[in-house]
Amino acid sequence: MTAVLTREACEAMDRSDPLAFARVRFALPPGVIYLDGNSLGPLPRATADALAQQVQVAWGQGLIRSWNTAGWIDAPLRIGTRIARLIGAGADEVAVTDSTSVNLFKLASAAVALRPGRRVILSEPGNFPTDLYMLQGLCQQLGGAVELKCVPRDRIADALDDTVAVLVLTHVHYTSGEMFDMAGMTARAHAVGALTLWDLSHSTGAVPVDLSAAGADLAVGCGYKYLNGGPGAPAFAYVARRHQADLRQPLSGWMGHAAPFAFVDDYQPAEGIARMLCGTPSVLAMTALDCGIATFDGVEMAAVRTKSMSLSSLFLDLLEARLPGLFELVSPRNAADRASHVSLAHPDGYAIMAALIAAGVIGDFRAPDRLRFGFTPLYLSHADVFDAVETLVRIMQTESWRDPRFAVRQAVT
Amino acid sequence: MTAVLTREACEAMDRSDPLAFARVRFALPPGVIYLDGNSLGPLPRATADALAQQVQVAWGQGLIRSWNTAGWIDAPLRIGTRIARLIGAGADEVAVTDSTSVNLFKLASAAVALRPGRRVILSEPGNFPTDLYMLQGLCQQLGGAVELKCVPRDRIADALDDTVAVLVLTHVHYTSGEMFDMAGMTARAHAVGALTLWDLSHSTGAVPVDLSAAGADLAVGCGYKYLNGGPGAPAFAYVARRHQADLRQPLSGWMGHAAPFAFVDDYQPAEGIARMLCGTPSVLAMTALDCGIATFDGVEMAAVRTKSMSLSSLFLDLLEARLPGLFELVSPRNAADRASHVSLAHPDGYAIMAALIAAGVIGDFRAPDRLRFGFTPLYLSHADVFDAVETLVRIMQTESWRDPRFAVRQAVT
Repeated sequence: MTAVLTREACEAMDRSDPLAFARVRFALPPGVIYLDGNSLGPLPRATADALAQQVQVAWGQGLIRSWNTAGWIDAPLRIGTRIARLIGAGADEVAVTDSTSVNLFKLASAAVALRPGRRVILSEPGNFPTDLYMLQGLCQQLGGAVELKCVPRDRIADALDDTVAVLVLTHVHYTSGEMFDMAGMTARAHAVGALTLWDLSHSTGAVPVDLSAAGADLAVGCGYKYLNGGPGAPAFAYVARRHQADLRQPLSGWMGHAAPFAFVDDYQPAEGIARMLCGTPSVLAMTALDCGIATFDGVEMAAVRTKSMSLSSLFLDLLEARLPGLFELVSPRNAADRASHVSLAHPDGYAIMAALIAAGVIGDFRAPDRLRFGFTPLYLSHADVFDAVETLVRIMQTESWRDPRFAVRQAVT
Repeated sequence: MTAVLTREACEAMDRSDPLAFARVRFALPPGVIYLDGNSLGPLPRATADALAQQVQVAWGQGLIRSWNTAGWIDAPLRIGTRIARLIGAGADEVAVTDSTSVNLFKLASAAVALRPGRRVILSEPGNFPTDLYMLQGLCQQLGGAVELKCVPRDRIADALDDTVAVLVLTHVHYTSGEMFDMAGMTARAHAVGALTLWDLSHSTGAVPVDLSAAGADLAVGCGYKYLNGGPGAPAFAYVARRHQADLRQPLSGWMGHAAPFAFVDDYQPAEGIARMLCGTPSVLAMTALDCGIATFDGVEMAAVRTKSMSLSSLFLDLLEARLPGLFELVSPRNAADRASHVSLAHPDGYAIMAALIAAGVIGDFRAPDRLRFGFTPLYLSHADVFDAVETLVRIMQTESWRDPRFAVRQAVT
């Protein structure tokens, strides 16, 4: 074990951490090292008070009036603008609305309509399941006019031809953490006249994303992972400005109408990104999301990326030094090729993760055999990573994960 | 003015009100008479603490583990079961998910798929706008294979023929409050082989609904009106048990998968009502909805109906006695024909409603000229109705609504 891998060395790195100031923004439980912010971000300290204010004052006292006076009606676009900064989008290109799944359906539908005559939606096997499920639902609804074609990522470039309406990819893979070259894939898609639709669920707040520079067309993303917006937080949708005027999405609800309170019978889409809205959004859920995004105030994504690579590389270095050969690394070894989480494969992965969680190191498990660990720079230190690995070492050396209680599978994790 | 219309008479009615116990379940602001629970229900007293607990303990301390340990994963069906009681549905026929708009799209789409070869979705002009907008979006998505046909309600029976896949109606009209005969219309639709899809947004918690007895096929409804679930609360979807196995809805997200955490590439719908779920639902929004539904604990809808008719009839009696001929009644005069809200038309309706709200009597305005008042038996008394009318009398007699500040239109209300 080299000097750089001692706890003292980790503490030294933490003393010069330019993001150390952000940890107090979170209400983390004592005795827990939380390596699952990639699945559900922890509670920001400001959220409870903001929600209490929204509930007791805006709702309780303001009642229906708060749609105007407490800024409820503007929240989807106002919060969208705050997300835009984190993903290289224009302030008027992002709306908070519905779930990632629903937004993917809207935008894949819209993309197909923008490319009439093209009958292929291109994606990859092993993409995040709900993305594939929503695309399957869309294709079935369109009755064979469009088909979902999934090809392994090393063959996507070859599969791009003039039958492809839209290339739908998740920028950061949910298990491996491997990243697509967004600009490169977008250029390839554009070269054959296809659009791109990026799922940024494991990217937003995790790695720098520059949708504008990449020339991306459409994107969706999640509010409850790195954005710390709370369980099931609303998602967001991005539409490049150049596509907004022509974009028609099928979930044409009243909040996306040009004049929602005119109560006319015919749908007329709102100008700009507002046409992505559908039904009445949850104000409480948006309030928590707003607080989650505020944990990035004054934080540059470049600094997040530097520290994220440092944390996950430290994790892998320690693992190789302390538990050589015990886990198969599913993620790229080169930090530049992966995002902010790392997956390890082990045939007893479920029980090992259950034992880790019981010991206060919370990651998660993804079928069939993946242990997944997220390295979120706003609240994790290098010392946390050191301690987490030491806990894993103890569990593996004592084989405490063989305790039968760790074999009982629960619905989630 | 007859004796029955004195404040003393109102107070006497309130003394024998079997629902008077429920008022303490709400945190109503002092000095306000809230006649807009049909648009946004007021804050239940239990909601703030339940949310604080969910935020600080389940999310803050439990983190990702709470999907299993705090019952998050089961919430959509558990809360659906609680709504089922209020609408005459089976415990396994209702799911809480998404918005009313999104659920309408899912179910209208599913209905069309259940009736192949039929090309008409039948509804009425003046239906709640988002319902028509979503159906328009669906028809456009289906590329002319299906068309939305809107006919006035007195011609719906004639328009029902074997081209109709599904009859989509809002049970209680959002302005007039007029109610459809659900069982009768359903029988007519079934007679020609069409399905029915009922929007219960202004019915649930307002009037007794018996979907089972009516033989209804599909329904959606709103969580933030009479159910008091908070601004933008999640909505619900109902599918009669006999249709569940064959029902395919296009928004096939992972939460509606037979095995969401198996992470397989192909969609396989869950058994039963769970296939109505789509993306990850907001836990915070569901928590508030759960508290809202709890305001109906121990309350029978028959008692709600009796008091609701008494309140709205008192309102109209007082109005006719105190301000004869000043407003046009848009709602049915016969209490049995309307639900729990009443609309009045007046060319200066916007300013009059603004003046009323400024005076602490909160109703709402619906374009072009409708003043709308909701009579919600869980927290309103007959004395409240008396006082509200007296306030309206003062505003009309002094013409205080002509104050220029009441002419400035806001986005909502």
